Amino acid sequence: MDEGDFRTLKGYARQKGPGLTAAMEDYLEMICRCAGEEGFVRVRQLAHRLHVSPSSASKMAELLRKEGYVEYEKYAFIRPTAKGRETGAYLLRRHAVLERFLRYVNHSQDELEQVEGIEHFICENTVRNLEALLRRLEG
Amino acid sequence: MDEGDFRTLKGYARQKGPGLTAAMEDYLEMICRCAGEEGFVRVRQLAHRLHVSPSSASKMAELLRKEGYVEYEKYAFIRPTAKGRETGAYLLRRHAVLERFLRYVNHSQDELEQVEGIEHFICENTVRNLEALLRRLEG
Repeated sequence: MDEGDFRTLKGYARQKGPGLTAAMEDYLEMICRCAGEEGFVRVRQLAHRLHVSPSSASKMAELLRKEGYVEYEKYAFIRPTAKGRETGAYLLRRHAVLERFLRYVNHSQDELEQVEGIEHFICENTVRNLEALLRRLEG
Repeated sequence: MDEGDFRTLKGYARQKGPGLTAAMEDYLEMICRCAGEEGFVRVRQLAHRLHVSPSSASKMAELLRKEGYVEYEKYAFIRPTAKGRETGAYLLRRHAVLERFLRYVNHSQDELEQVEGIEHFICENTVRNLEALLRRLEG
């Protein structure tokens, strides 16, 4: 019998090791969504958009700064670095592809919560293949 | 501009309120996968299959017992109740549909980790619609 290499969700996260956590991805994605042409976002605005406290947003901005994804001085602006913009662009693309796919499958516009749940666990290869499938289905 | 009701992954979990957590789902799914025709699984076997310690497995079995999903006496057998079997059957079906879908999309057999990540965030409606899509694509 094929036992399969099962783990709990926590077990997989532990095995994955360093890198962006789901929370860091959520914040960086939103920072890049908000930064737009101005190139920055205020801590308060970020906190508001994610329904978190300004102090949570500030803590996470500091963490992303240490990892080189943003520039940040406390209580001021959060500005994605080149590395942050590149990663953020991928996170936004992944989000958009999953949302488009779930809207297609469920004939519904209201897919945000499921997308926000699953996006952290979807790898780049799947994003690419889903894009190709969508082209076929919608084409 | 449509702001969208974004939350962090933790924020969504908090909003969702009571019900099975991702960890409880992982355990119940595996209990039902292992129980098979005998109708029970040993704590040690469950721990082995999920790569966790026997004491973690025992704690979770106790939690599932309190919620009415299994019968369990410490250090002995875990036996799903009718409610546990029904929920477990849905969890196994959700897992199987997502695995079948990702295998189709990625032309790969090795999709366990992504399935284990996303399954907790996929609702029953999506499971049903994915099954219909797969019938169309594979039919």
